[in-house]
Amino acid sequence: MIMIPKRFDTMFDLNSYLASKQKQINLYLDNLLKKYSDSALGSRIHDAMKYTLAGNGKRMRPILCIAAAEAVKGGNTQDVILAACAIEMIHTYSLIHDDLPAMDNDNIRRGKPTCHIAFDEATAILTGDALLTFAFQTLSLNKAETGKTVDSDRLLKVINRIAFAAGNGGMVEGQMMDVSSENRNLTINELEKMHSLKTGALISASVYSGAVLGGGTDGQIEALEIFAKNIGLAFQVKDDILNIEGEPEIMGKAAGTDIIRNKNTYPLVVGLKESKKIAQNLVNSALKTLDCFDSGADPLRHIAGYIIERKK
Amino acid sequence: MIMIPKRFDTMFDLNSYLASKQKQINLYLDNLLKKYSDSALGSRIHDAMKYTLAGNGKRMRPILCIAAAEAVKGGNTQDVILAACAIEMIHTYSLIHDDLPAMDNDNIRRGKPTCHIAFDEATAILTGDALLTFAFQTLSLNKAETGKTVDSDRLLKVINRIAFAAGNGGMVEGQMMDVSSENRNLTINELEKMHSLKTGALISASVYSGAVLGGGTDGQIEALEIFAKNIGLAFQVKDDILNIEGEPEIMGKAAGTDIIRNKNTYPLVVGLKESKKIAQNLVNSALKTLDCFDSGADPLRHIAGYIIERKK
Repeated sequence: MIMIPKRFDTMFDLNSYLASKQKQINLYLDNLLKKYSDSALGSRIHDAMKYTLAGNGKRMRPILCIAAAEAVKGGNTQDVILAACAIEMIHTYSLIHDDLPAMDNDNIRRGKPTCHIAFDEATAILTGDALLTFAFQTLSLNKAETGKTVDSDRLLKVINRIAFAAGNGGMVEGQMMDVSSENRNLTINELEKMHSLKTGALISASVYSGAVLGGGTDGQIEALEIFAKNIGLAFQVKDDILNIEGEPEIMGKAAGTDIIRNKNTYPLVVGLKESKKIAQNLVNSALKTLDCFDSGADPLRHIAGYIIERKK
Repeated sequence: MIMIPKRFDTMFDLNSYLASKQKQINLYLDNLLKKYSDSALGSRIHDAMKYTLAGNGKRMRPILCIAAAEAVKGGNTQDVILAACAIEMIHTYSLIHDDLPAMDNDNIRRGKPTCHIAFDEATAILTGDALLTFAFQTLSLNKAETGKTVDSDRLLKVINRIAFAAGNGGMVEGQMMDVSSENRNLTINELEKMHSLKTGALISASVYSGAVLGGGTDGQIEALEIFAKNIGLAFQVKDDILNIEGEPEIMGKAAGTDIIRNKNTYPLVVGLKESKKIAQNLVNSALKTLDCFDSGADPLRHIAGYIIERKK
């Protein structure tokens, strides 16, 4: 059972919250692309960036960024919307590159053909590169863009942390472990390490960025780091479970692909039942970390529950 | 003939200058990689980053960054060494991705097998991603790293400009034009556009970063922007010329590849003789822009000349 903390608002409508944040994020992504990407060139890259950013992505990472900012001071989305969009760009770039023939060779993503199928391989490589770079361009944009003043030193810290999480201190390293460990059995510790790099690092960076840019205290940032570590791993364990139990129509991607590729997953290493227990325990631990926060953290609390209840 | 401005120091030893800066840059690159890249994982990515960053690269872009900082106040390399290293990481990432089978499919780079040949394609894609990300991690590093205080707002401007130049406002767009215009004749204007995106943008950003982080005034930064635009194009025209006339042993890569691939180059579009004239005129214009600078700009003056005299 998910522990319901004392201050947990049972009237909170998570679906409305997620939908409203998704809408804001999509709007900003669209505007940033329009404003800063040179569509005047008739650019194939612009089209492919738009194609891959659009669609029914959950926007889980940028929403976590926003929710973390709200948790530390009941703050405003505007404080962190650029960082949130940048994080979604980085997530999208990683999907494009992971899907490439030389890596996972996936044809369907977010319910439509992957970038290298819809365009071609060279375009997909370059579009990933463009989104990764565009993320840092967005992160370092002048404050005027949102009409909000963000402390420059805090912003530099956030840029540093996101770069670390996306790079060889996180996602890139995790994907390398993933690609090179196919057809080889990982221990549970190696698997946890791989997941913490591949998925956990950017989820942690999302929460960290929201907490720092939202003006959080050192104590709040520290607590949210622990929260993020737990839900980050829970998120990936649930992804592994969905790859077995999920419905492709709902997920927008094929199921069963991990088994076919002999990928190391939680269900493969510890079994399906134990995987579910692990995910639940991680979410419980995450919720406990939020005890010191007031109702401003309710979105984070509900998102933690959603992470293991989601169908896609 | 190259115009020799009044204050041009004919005793200046460019080779010593380049060698000394190359040494500094290589040392910092090596230290950054040791310190921030997780070699403890026994990481293939770490090895591939080291492999591609090492070698006999000219380090032209980071040296331009340092020389620009020196020009605006006779300043110190320390002000800009992190930005200089980040720029070299971005340049190296772009070479790795451009060399991939889906793009230029090159086997030799900087005198040794390209990354996807020495490692494999998945590793090469990820290593490019890692270097691109590592560049922004390096750019946003705490000032403590160099013992120098850099103004945070200036640093954010530099990050924004470098991201723009590397991304779909520059290199990525230029490479897309390059890949998609093989077997199609470009006009001289289209060719100039492609070069200004593919090569010019990062060269401009290098000079801009040095000028801004070196504490340049708006007027100095503006003048150096014009200088950079001219030498950036001259650099690429010379590259086109070298691809025809250069010696593979000196260049560390094959010659004649542009013709084989039916690539659009200056010699192809306007002829070899006219290409040399264009390059010379661009360098002359660049030198003229430096007239308002004192002897602190001598390295930039000599580098401008070197750009069209170089053999690799």
